[in-house]
Parts: sequence; structure tokens; C-alpha cells
Amino acid sequence: MKGFDFEEERIKQEITKQGAKRVLLQFPEGLKPEAPRLAAIVEKSGALAIISGDPCYGACDVAADEAERLGADLILHFGHAQMLRHTQVPTVYIEARATITIDSAVEQSIPLLSKWNKIGLATTVQHIQVLDRVREILVRAGKTVVVGDAGTTQYAGQVTGCDCSNVKSVTNDAEAFLFIGGGKFHALGIALATSKPTVIADPYENKAYSINPDAEKILKQRWAGIGEAGKAKIFGVLIGLKPGQKHLDEALRIKETIEKSGKVACLLAIREVLPEALMEFPTVEAYVNTACPRISLEAPLKFSKPVLTVNEFRVVSGESSWENLLKKGLFEN
Amino acid sequence: MKGFDFEEERIKQEITKQGAKRVLLQFPEGLKPEAPRLAAIVEKSGALAIISGDPCYGACDVAADEAERLGADLILHFGHAQMLRHTQVPTVYIEARATITIDSAVEQSIPLLSKWNKIGLATTVQHIQVLDRVREILVRAGKTVVVGDAGTTQYAGQVTGCDCSNVKSVTNDAEAFLFIGGGKFHALGIALATSKPTVIADPYENKAYSINPDAEKILKQRWAGIGEAGKAKIFGVLIGLKPGQKHLDEALRIKETIEKSGKVACLLAIREVLPEALMEFPTVEAYVNTACPRISLEAPLKFSKPVLTVNEFRVVSGESSWENLLKKGLFEN
Repeated sequence: MKGFDFEEERIKQEITKQGAKRVLLQFPEGLKPEAPRLAAIVEKSGALAIISGDPCYGACDVAADEAERLGADLILHFGHAQMLRHTQVPTVYIEARATITIDSAVEQSIPLLSKWNKIGLATTVQHIQVLDRVREILVRAGKTVVVGDAGTTQYAGQVTGCDCSNVKSVTNDAEAFLFIGGGKFHALGIALATSKPTVIADPYENKAYSINPDAEKILKQRWAGIGEAGKAKIFGVLIGLKPGQKHLDEALRIKETIEKSGKVACLLAIREVLPEALMEFPTVEAYVNTACPRISLEAPLKFSKPVLTVNEFRVVSGESSWENLLKKGLFEN
Repeated sequence: MKGFDFEEERIKQEITKQGAKRVLLQFPEGLKPEAPRLAAIVEKSGALAIISGDPCYGACDVAADEAERLGADLILHFGHAQMLRHTQVPTVYIEARATITIDSAVEQSIPLLSKWNKIGLATTVQHIQVLDRVREILVRAGKTVVVGDAGTTQYAGQVTGCDCSNVKSVTNDAEAFLFIGGGKFHALGIALATSKPTVIADPYENKAYSINPDAEKILKQRWAGIGEAGKAKIFGVLIGLKPGQKHLDEALRIKETIEKSGKVACLLAIREVLPEALMEFPTVEAYVNTACPRISLEAPLKFSKPVLTVNEFRVVSGESSWENLLKKGLFEN
């Protein structure tokens, strides 16, 4: 796969340094096609390579238990920056930085940002190294640039699926945000977390566009889901089983709140929150999801019942208001 | 859900007896709709109930790790007979015996069995209590009945997705087999494991029919898959991550065999062997599946690449022949 730096020399060095004999390689979906090639590199370094074939959507989902079960003594986790500080099996993060040039996509974003002067920058770990270059292009176009650092992610300006703290930390300083990267997923998170105009500069598609129409559509869907959940009598409270997605105490608190209002709450522990899995519980009328909050984002399109985030549930329970929710962000922990 | 005995009194007694404070309830797909009702019974007995929302296809798949992670002190595993002897968290098996009457379906099977005198009986744990009644009906119709007991399952005459030892132990004594139960899955296993005429008496559909045409179709598909895999240069060797599906040593042996023949083998550890998951590895041309052998059964319809069982791989590697495979059974461990 061209366009990403898999740090092959570092892989070899880490295996030698750690004296690893059995290595578990873990990739997010988009990078999995590279797995057999990188497994071969691991084996050339003298260790047995086992590829994790299960879905992986974030650094919250390090295959630590699987590694233990397989007797692996090293995990190579690709495509994400470190999030969990301690795992039982030593974990090396290979961030898979993109090598694609971003200049053209960023140039195309400038006309879309014409109404605003102060621009907040954000990106995923894949493009974190280009933020200085983006800043340069924007400053040359007469903009003031801010890059937030709330200290919760590995890098300033970095966003993940569930953590927009960096952009939120500069919401008051920025009139609009520019996100560098592919797909709508992360930029939607920024628009929803900040309620600010948000433009994507997508180097893969080589184009720039506003994400705000999509964000508005999602807000309407979320509002409808909250209304629907307000009428539910039987709730399912989802507990994530992945290492960084398990919020059992939160789930117990929500169960208690639901029961205090005279309704029924079932705790459901689940690894992959998939529509097929939830369809097995036809009597449950609405879900509150304490696992990965971003699962809920696509819920109205894929799930037949509302799948509320914890923050959205606070509106249903009366602990918060829709207005406060918009301020706090729908999808953040 | 009418038609199954969930042993609700026993559930209460077990919780009291074990002094359980937090109970994980686990169900196969068809029984999951009952989960919220049974969770309420658990909570009335004074314990916190957590339902496992992940897929569960057999007693090989007890959610022992999940229970530990959730701090559960008891697992209630529904719908399967005990298979794993030791789990870290105490596990109670609620077999969910069916209460439906089987007489009419069995009566309908008699004309289909007219050519044979000695009939082998088999069923799943759900109907194990009716085997005596079925024997009575068949004997009255002039048949001789055999029920195998190879000692590998909880009950004589019981079949599971991956264990047809009981029917195989009486293959030489039986001219044909009668399976009592719903769906084609288990009866297909019997027909493929024994190469004998096999009739289903399905009490849910209230009908009887031969499974042999389906079995023949599957044999053709399997033969084609073996041929396709024989041409592959890059193999994926699947390692199951579920407690009773992990056969790491077998996977390592297969990897070695593949590599000795000058081909490439990647080890892939996976919890749920799903078509979407395997599609992430486009360079892999064929899979050998050491996890649940029955996953391979539906492979030609759902997967885009051959997914061989361990026994089928032995034909590809030259360790065995197609004829031996038919004798040993394609889908058994």
C-alpha cells in the first residue's frame, strides 16, 4: 500500500530490542491489506507473526487479551497513536503516517474559508506531520491559525473518533475549522463538537468541502432518536468489552437512573455493536451506548432502534438539555 | 418464548446456592429474545444481570473471559450442553429443552425410511429427552433403532455442530439416520459424517424430508473449493479466539506444511470468522480454518475464497485423499 509509512526498519529493531518470539499484528480495516506483507517482515526478523483478523476501530481496541491468549510477547498496533497507557503485553504503535501531499486540497479549502479569519486546524495521526505546512499555506493566504492542545491525545491538533478535546480547547479562538484527511467521520466529529463551520481538505480525493450540511442532518436524526427513546419503556444499556471502551460504572449509573424513573433497563455486554446483534433483542425499545460513542453516529441509518450516546441519554433523563448537549458535544465521552 | 424450558426455578436456586452477586447470561442467537425476561428473573433473585450481546454458536463459546472482565461470579449459558470442563468463572448450563411434540413429524418420516430397517437416531440437546419416544414410534413401525454413544458429548444420540461422534460410532449398524430437530445444519453434519441416507423430522415445520440432496450439493462445492485451494500460493491459516475453538498447535503445524511446499502461510487470529473480515486480506487466496469447522460449511455461499476445514486441507497437502476425507468427515475435528 503506497502512501503510508509502515516504519519497517523500526519494526525489525523493536523485535530485536524486545527479543520478541511471537508478535501479534493489529490493523484498522483500511490498512489490513498490508498485513501479510508486514507479517513476512516480522518473520524475517525471527519472530512468529500472527495477524489479528477482528475489526479494529481505534487505539481503544488494542488486542491485549488476544495477545495473552495466543502467547504473543509483543503487539504491533498499526494506524493509531498510543491511547491506553498500560497493556499486559508490550505494545508498539506504528502510526502509519500518510505520505500523500496535501497542498492542493488545502489550497482548494481557502475559498471555502473566505468568510473567516481565525482558522483552527485538526487532523488524524496519519497527517499530523503536515500541520506546519498547512499553517504556512493558510498564513500566506492571510489567515490566523490556531492548533489546540488539551493534553488528552498524543499530538496537538489531533482528533480521534471519540476525542475532539483539542479542537474544543480552541473553539472560542477559532471562527472555523479546517480538517485535513480522508472521509467524513472525523470532520463530522469536529463540527458536532464545536458547532463551528468545518471544512475538509481531503488529499485522497484532492478536494475541499464543507461538512456542515451533513452535521445538520445528523443533528436532526439525533434529536428524533432522543424523542423516540423518551417514549421507550425497556432500555438496553450497552457495555463495551474492548479494553478502552468498557465503562461499567457509567452503565450501572444509567441503569439506576432508568429504573428510578419506573422503566426497565437491561445491561448488555458486547464486543462489536452491530445492527444484527441488537436485532436479537426485539423487546428492547432503545439503547444507551457506553462503549464507543461514535457507533451511535451512524445508528439512524443502520440500526432499527435509537442508540443514544451517554450525553444524549442525559437529555432523555432530564439531567441535561439539548442546548447543553450541543455545547458539550453529542459523541464525546 | 413458548416451547423451551428455561428452568427458571433452577436459575433462582443456582444463584442462591452459589451466592452469586453478578451473573452473565449467554444465549445462542435463537434464544436471545428471551434474555431480558430471564435477566429480570436473575435480578429478582438478588444478583445483577448482564446479558452477553455477542454471537454465540455453541458450548465451545462460553463467555468466560468476558465474565472475568465484567466481574461476574456466575455464567448462565443457555441452549447448549456442557462441553468445556473448566472455566475460570463457574458456569451453569441451562439446556433449554424443547417442549414441542414430535410425534407427527416422526410419523411423517416413516415412509421416507421405508427402504431401510436399521435406523440410527440423533438429535440436539434441545430434543434429547424425546429419543425414547421416537424409538417407540419407529419400533412400532417395524424398525430396529440404534442410538450411538461415543462418550464425547453429554448425552447418547446427541450431535453438535462439530461433533457427530455418536452417529459415527453406529455408522456400520445403521442403514439410515433420522435426525429430530429444526433446520438443516445438524442433519447435514450427520449426512456428511456418515455418507448414509439421512432424514429430518422437523417438529417446528411439522414435516419430514431427506437432507441428502443438500449434502450432495455441498460435497460438490467442497470438492471445487479443494481444487481452487490447490492452486493458491498464499494461504491464511485461521486461529479461533473462542475458548473451545483455539487450536494454535494445529495452525502452526499447517503453516509449516504449507511453507514446506514453497507456499506462503499467514496466521490469522479471529473471533468471528465473517466474510467481511476475510475480505480485508485481498492477497490471501485460500484459508484453512482451525476454528469452528462448521463455519466452512456455508463458505461457498458467503465467502469469496475457499475456507477449508483442517481435514480438507489434508487433501490439498497430499496427507489424505478425498475418499478418506469422506470416510472421516469433512467438518469434524
